[in-house]
Amino acid sequence: MNKKGLFITFEGTDGCGKSTQIEKITQYLQSKNLSLVVTRDPGGTDLGKKLREILLGYEGKIYENCELFLYLADRAQHIDEKIIHALKEGKIVLCDRYVDSTVAYQGYARGLDKDKILELNNIVSHGLMPDLTLYFDVDTEIAMQRVGENKDRLEAEGVEFHKKVRNGFLDLAKKYDRIKVINSNQDIESVFNDAKVQIDRLVSKDITIIS
Amino acid sequence: MNKKGLFITFEGTDGCGKSTQIEKITQYLQSKNLSLVVTRDPGGTDLGKKLREILLGYEGKIYENCELFLYLADRAQHIDEKIIHALKEGKIVLCDRYVDSTVAYQGYARGLDKDKILELNNIVSHGLMPDLTLYFDVDTEIAMQRVGENKDRLEAEGVEFHKKVRNGFLDLAKKYDRIKVINSNQDIESVFNDAKVQIDRLVSKDITIIS
Repeated sequence: MNKKGLFITFEGTDGCGKSTQIEKITQYLQSKNLSLVVTRDPGGTDLGKKLREILLGYEGKIYENCELFLYLADRAQHIDEKIIHALKEGKIVLCDRYVDSTVAYQGYARGLDKDKILELNNIVSHGLMPDLTLYFDVDTEIAMQRVGENKDRLEAEGVEFHKKVRNGFLDLAKKYDRIKVINSNQDIESVFNDAKVQIDRLVSKDITIIS
Repeated sequence: MNKKGLFITFEGTDGCGKSTQIEKITQYLQSKNLSLVVTRDPGGTDLGKKLREILLGYEGKIYENCELFLYLADRAQHIDEKIIHALKEGKIVLCDRYVDSTVAYQGYARGLDKDKILELNNIVSHGLMPDLTLYFDVDTEIAMQRVGENKDRLEAEGVEFHKKVRNGFLDLAKKYDRIKVINSNQDIESVFNDAKVQIDRLVSKDITIIS
């Protein structure tokens, strides 16, 4: 895939504070007059919003394979309709969750085959991987307190599930150099400062790198 | 997979008359006091109904990979929630469309890799293939006349698309012995008689065959 922009993804368990950080990073990059697309997975397209509603709100049981294929269907549309075009136009794409969430949640936590997930992801993403991934790491107990009572379908899973997700992310961060762990047990400004270091390091290189 | 029942699928282009034939075959098998589950793909579960609505009714563009993964997500839920249980209970499952539709529509007509589709289907179906598939073959022009003006998203594709789908089904029927071609240019009763011959041949063997 020929791309010119930068693809930055944000990962973490629910309650890790990533939405706040994405907002702050968006403002920061906009203040530098960089052209951004801020999006999320699932739900980054009109069709994806319908799928997100099902994935986070469906009240019956969603079987593991169905869940996985729905996330990938959402991603397929997101990539083909939105992300690829934005990258070709040289934009910086900030995406709330991407492949690492799929591996952490459906692989590490639900127990589906992690290599198979990557292989399937490769089909829908045409091999597109992030230039940088910020993983906002937070103690599971703190994260669950932050989420509070009003939980969606995934948030409503128990502590053990969320611990598996967290361990999954930490394991992935060891494997892939593109994933930077941000200690998100800190206050919002300190987390932002740590995130900004990583963003600056990437963006200052050259935003028209051909990868 | 240990199963005891029989899995019969019905395939064809839109307008081939398969809904009418499924009704008639259902009545016929019920008259023999056989225990049936009549279902359809997509849309055989509560979750699947939501996906069917998107697949047949969404007004924007659905990209090829997204479409494929949505059909497979629907199938994953259908298999795990409904079909496997019915077969284990020794029932005869009659399913309106299954894997051959995916290969004919997304493979032959949309141009996605047919072997890849089968590989992906194998994941969501846990390898479950039909014991018998009736393919209702009809001339594309006749089929399109039967569909009329009120078309869903797939029916609204042009003649060339539907010809590719038909050729796909015919090609699959040459490859797989389980697929029986029923000439559906005939009147309803003649089509039913031809279908019944195939159903009788399978059901009379033994409905508790272990495959």
